[in-house]
Amino acid sequence: MQFTPLAELERRVQNLQAVMQRDSLDGALLTEKMDLFYFGGSMQQGFLFIPVDQNPLFMVKRNFKRAKEETNWEKVMPLNGLNQLSEYLHDYACKDIQRLGLELDILPVNLYQQLERIFPHVQFVDLSKSIREVRMIKSEFEIKCFREASKVAANVNRQIPGLIKVGKPEIILGTEIESLYRKEGHQGILRMRAFNTEMFFGHVYSGENGAASTFLDSCTGGEGVTPACPQGAGWKALAPHEPIGVDYGSMHGGYVLDYTRVFSIGALPPELERAYDAALQVQESVVLRAVPGAVCGDLYELALEIAAANGLGDFFEGYKDEQVKFIGHGVGLDVDEYPLLSQGSKHILEPGMVFALEPKFIFPGKGMIGLENVWLVTESGLEKISLIPDDLVTVPLSGA
Amino acid sequence: MQFTPLAELERRVQNLQAVMQRDSLDGALLTEKMDLFYFGGSMQQGFLFIPVDQNPLFMVKRNFKRAKEETNWEKVMPLNGLNQLSEYLHDYACKDIQRLGLELDILPVNLYQQLERIFPHVQFVDLSKSIREVRMIKSEFEIKCFREASKVAANVNRQIPGLIKVGKPEIILGTEIESLYRKEGHQGILRMRAFNTEMFFGHVYSGENGAASTFLDSCTGGEGVTPACPQGAGWKALAPHEPIGVDYGSMHGGYVLDYTRVFSIGALPPELERAYDAALQVQESVVLRAVPGAVCGDLYELALEIAAANGLGDFFEGYKDEQVKFIGHGVGLDVDEYPLLSQGSKHILEPGMVFALEPKFIFPGKGMIGLENVWLVTESGLEKISLIPDDLVTVPLSGA
Repeated sequence: MQFTPLAELERRVQNLQAVMQRDSLDGALLTEKMDLFYFGGSMQQGFLFIPVDQNPLFMVKRNFKRAKEETNWEKVMPLNGLNQLSEYLHDYACKDIQRLGLELDILPVNLYQQLERIFPHVQFVDLSKSIREVRMIKSEFEIKCFREASKVAANVNRQIPGLIKVGKPEIILGTEIESLYRKEGHQGILRMRAFNTEMFFGHVYSGENGAASTFLDSCTGGEGVTPACPQGAGWKALAPHEPIGVDYGSMHGGYVLDYTRVFSIGALPPELERAYDAALQVQESVVLRAVPGAVCGDLYELALEIAAANGLGDFFEGYKDEQVKFIGHGVGLDVDEYPLLSQGSKHILEPGMVFALEPKFIFPGKGMIGLENVWLVTESGLEKISLIPDDLVTVPLSGA
Repeated sequence: MQFTPLAELERRVQNLQAVMQRDSLDGALLTEKMDLFYFGGSMQQGFLFIPVDQNPLFMVKRNFKRAKEETNWEKVMPLNGLNQLSEYLHDYACKDIQRLGLELDILPVNLYQQLERIFPHVQFVDLSKSIREVRMIKSEFEIKCFREASKVAANVNRQIPGLIKVGKPEIILGTEIESLYRKEGHQGILRMRAFNTEMFFGHVYSGENGAASTFLDSCTGGEGVTPACPQGAGWKALAPHEPIGVDYGSMHGGYVLDYTRVFSIGALPPELERAYDAALQVQESVVLRAVPGAVCGDLYELALEIAAANGLGDFFEGYKDEQVKFIGHGVGLDVDEYPLLSQGSKHILEPGMVFALEPKFIFPGKGMIGLENVWLVTESGLEKISLIPDDLVTVPLSGA
C-alpha cells in the first residue's frame, strides 16, 4: 500500500494553515473523506482537527487501528462520540477556540447543528472554498499518481479497438473496459465532491446516446440501464459509422485521470470528422494560451470563439439550451476539482494545477465528437499528462 | 426502461402526506437523489415539492427533458436558479407556506442557508426520519425488483466456484464477479444514505482480510487496493482452507439485494465450520421470532444470546472492541435503510419490510464466517427473497 509521506502531509497542512492565519481562524475541523485523506493520509471515519499553529489531531470513530496504520501523523485518538470533540479540541489547542473552519459545502445540517450544541461559543466559518484552493495545486507526489494512472489508461485504451464489434451493447463494452481497469488495480469508486452527484467509472455511449445529457453538469452522460441510475452505458448496440465515446477515469492512489476518446466502426460522417478537427483546434489554441497567469474564464471564451468560427457554436459543449458553460475542470482525488475552466471563472493558472480539457460537440440524434486530455500547468505552459494519441480511431467494418 | 407507475408514485406520496398532516407541515421540499427517484420516479437534479394536500411539483435543474420522460407526475417545470423556488412554491401551493419538511440528514449547510434566505418566513422541519420510515415499507412493485435482483444473484453465485483458484488475487475474483453482474445490467453504483459513506459492488475478501474492518459501520470491509479506498478486494491471493467471502449487492431498478456467502478451497478449519453452524442457528432463531410486531432490538438481543451460548460472543459481528451493534438492516434504493436490527432499536416489524440479516463471526488472522440473506416481512412471518442455498461451498483442492 502507498501511504502519504509525512513531508507531503506537512506541506498540505501548512498551506491550509497559511489560509487560516490570513482568515484569523484558530483551526479547522474536517471530516469529508477526501479532505481527511488529503490532509491526514487516511479516510477512516472521524474528524481531523488542524490548529492554525500545530500539527493535526486525528480523532477516529472507525476504524482506529487502520487509521493508525494509514496516517503518518503522530496524534491519533479514538472518538467514541461527538461530545468528546469539545474536550479533545480544548486540550489539544491549549486555548479557547473562537473561530473554527468547517466544510460547509458538504456538511449535513443535522451534523452541523450537533456541532453548534457541542461548541456553543465557537464561530463556524466555511472553509470549503479554501480547502479546494489548497487542493488545486498538486505536488510532485500527486503528479506521480496522475502519471501512473495515465500509463494504465494508455494500456487499456490500446485494447479498446479490439473490443468494438457491431451489435455489442454499450454496457458489454463498458464492462470489458471496467474489467481491464480493475485488473490493473482500479479502486472502483470514482468521486465527485458536488452534493448529490455520483459517477461510476465514467461513461460509454454510442451514436445518439452520446447526445444524451443527464443530471450531471456535463454535456454528455449516456443513457444508462435504468432511470434509477440514468447515466453511463445502456443497452444500445454499437453500429457502424457512429461515434463511440469512452469517457472513463483511470485511477491511482485515489487520483483520477479523466479522459475521453472517440472510436468508430468504419468512417464517421464528414460533418462529425470536421467537428473533430474543430475540437483539436480548440484544444491547440487553449493549450497555447494556458500559461501561468492566464485567467480560466478567458480560456473558456477563447474556446467558444473557435467553436463559433467553425460554425459550430450551437453544438459546443451541448446542443443549444442544454449547453454546459465550461470546457474543463481540475482533477485530483475528486473529478470535479478546481480550477474551473468555465464562463466567468476567475481562477488564474498556476504551476502545479492539473486539469482536464474537454472540447466536445454534441449533435442531436448523432452523438458526441471531441476529446478530453489531462494537462499539468508548468512554469512554461502546459504539459500533457495523457499518453494516448489524439486521433480518432477507426475500426475497419470488416474486422468488427 | 422501467419507469415507476403513477399509481405507485401516488401511494408513496400519500404515505408521506399522512405524516406531514400528522406533523402539521404544509409540504416537503426534497432533493436527495433517491428521495427524488422514490417520490418522483426520476433522479434528475432539482427539487420535488410535495404539498400536504396536492400532487407534487417537480422543479428540474438538469436534465429537464429526461425528467419529463422519467417521471409520471404531470407537473414538471424547469428550475433556472434557487431563487425561483420561492415563487414556484407560493404559486403552486396557493397559500403561504409556514412549515416545510427538508432532508436535514443529508442537506449541506451552504444549501440550507440559501434556502433560509429564499424562505425567510418559513420554519424548516427535519423530515428525513419520516421519509426513511415511509421508504421502509415496500410495495409489490418494489418487492418485484428485489426478486429480479435475487434471480441475478443466484445466477452469478452459481458461477463463483468455477472462478475460485489458488493464487488468484481477490481483486481478480472481484472483477470477474462484477463483470457477471454488469453484463446482466447491474447499474454499477450502489448507494448508502449515511453521510460520508460509499461502497462499490460490495466486498470480496479471503482469509485474514475477512477480519479487516474499515470505516463503514460493518464488521467486515476487506483490505482494498489503496488507503484512498480502504475497502473491498485487495491483492491477497486466494489460498486453501481459508474462508473466501463474497458480500455483493445485486441490483434491479435501483433496488439492492445484499447477500454474503462463504467459499473455500478444500475444507475449512473445524472451528470455523462450527461457527458457521452457529451463524445458521442465529439465522433460524431470528427468522422464527421475526413476525409482525416483533421489536428489532429484541431480535438483536436474541442473536447475541445464541452467539454467546455457542461460546462465540467475542467473535460475533466483529472481534471484541471492533464489534458492530447490529445483525441486519433494511435494504431498498439504499443499502442502509430502515428497519435497523440493532442494539436498542425500537423498529417494530411490519408486513412489507425488507431487510438483510447477516449473522457473521470474525476470527482475527483467520477471517469471516457467516452469511447474509434478504427477507421480506409478511403477515405470517418472514419470506426468504434470496434464492441461494445457505451452504458453505467447498471447491475441491484439486480443481482449484
